[in-house]
Amino acid sequence: MWRNRRVNVVADKLGGSQNGQMQIALALYPRFTVLDIIGPFQLLADVAGHDIVWVAETAGPVVDHTGRTPLIATHTFDEVLTPDVVVVPGGMANDENPALNAWLQRVHATTTWTTTVCTGSVHLARAGLLYGLEATTHWASAKLLNELGATYTEQRVVRQGKIITAAGVSSGIYMALTLLAEMHGDTVAQMLQLSIEYDPQPPFNAGSPSKAPTEVVELLQKFFADR
Amino acid sequence: MWRNRRVNVVADKLGGSQNGQMQIALALYPRFTVLDIIGPFQLLADVAGHDIVWVAETAGPVVDHTGRTPLIATHTFDEVLTPDVVVVPGGMANDENPALNAWLQRVHATTTWTTTVCTGSVHLARAGLLYGLEATTHWASAKLLNELGATYTEQRVVRQGKIITAAGVSSGIYMALTLLAEMHGDTVAQMLQLSIEYDPQPPFNAGSPSKAPTEVVELLQKFFADR
Repeated sequence: MWRNRRVNVVADKLGGSQNGQMQIALALYPRFTVLDIIGPFQLLADVAGHDIVWVAETAGPVVDHTGRTPLIATHTFDEVLTPDVVVVPGGMANDENPALNAWLQRVHATTTWTTTVCTGSVHLARAGLLYGLEATTHWASAKLLNELGATYTEQRVVRQGKIITAAGVSSGIYMALTLLAEMHGDTVAQMLQLSIEYDPQPPFNAGSPSKAPTEVVELLQKFFADR
Repeated sequence: MWRNRRVNVVADKLGGSQNGQMQIALALYPRFTVLDIIGPFQLLADVAGHDIVWVAETAGPVVDHTGRTPLIATHTFDEVLTPDVVVVPGGMANDENPALNAWLQRVHATTTWTTTVCTGSVHLARAGLLYGLEATTHWASAKLLNELGATYTEQRVVRQGKIITAAGVSSGIYMALTLLAEMHGDTVAQMLQLSIEYDPQPPFNAGSPSKAPTEVVELLQKFFADR
């Protein structure tokens, strides 16, 4: 009996009623990195009661850092002022973005969770919301994050109160699983992990500067510096 | 000296000349799963000389299985008949798609690599291209893949000649790293792995049916069955 009730309750989280919606705002800005935001999107979008909105300064297509894959903003920043959850991706534009900055300062006051992936944390720091806090970001932006008043911590995910920051690009998947566990419990998070068959076995051990061959780190640093 | 030349040669792969382009066709169809294709996209798009095209039966927005995130097809199937590489994502529409089917049959004759993520392999099997071959897919579609004449193999990535199939959703990242290593060597693949900081440390050990708690597997099977 308990088991059947339990099955229904948790399965309803994924497929059931739309009561008690939580608004989840996924932020876009020019030259964002697509995988940063699609990792969390895929995990968050399949949970019933999650109202996903794509927000940007203006509605319509926002082009990513490769120039090849626009995502469509369904709402402007001004139309989404009280989201329950915010996710900010990183990208190749880490200068101050005044519209994003102002929106983050405004919505963070009332969010339940404010989250970032990759250099999304740089924008959160520019908005003054990481001052004096531990946080993470893409490894190549650790120095910048420290200069903006946060304390870079070499972890996949760092939680400080209601702020969760994640490391580079692919770590958004880890961040979203952490967030789902906080929002709905471990079982729902594990169901989503199983649904995306997230059982990573990377073919190489090169995913962080401390693990990758020195030559690989130097080559990539040169590439970033040239760009 | 060697080292400097080597740095330039490999860095050029990521940021340099556009000579010797390879056309990489990313296939879209209604109710595809976004993360399936964005994992490979992100790894393949940052390599110089990769001409990424988004292809579908008709050009324009193609809506994903959540209904929330269209991606834009830049070309029709008819406009892309000799791609060097094809990537087919999975999705929630595993019935036969005649347009996709016919295109796969046609382009596979001349591809260098034909690849799938998740139930993308179901479409490849429907096109008759996996008959008698080992392949993988999303764990929940293993039986279907076998019924279509392939032999499901419980691995993240399975290579058979020029065909590479990957398991569910997130395994597309692994598939793309494998493909990059084949195309450009291990160093370039490792640079891309480091650039997306792919150093996974999942918060739960629930990424495959053999590892996840029984309750989680049963809940998700119930959810899939209801849908």
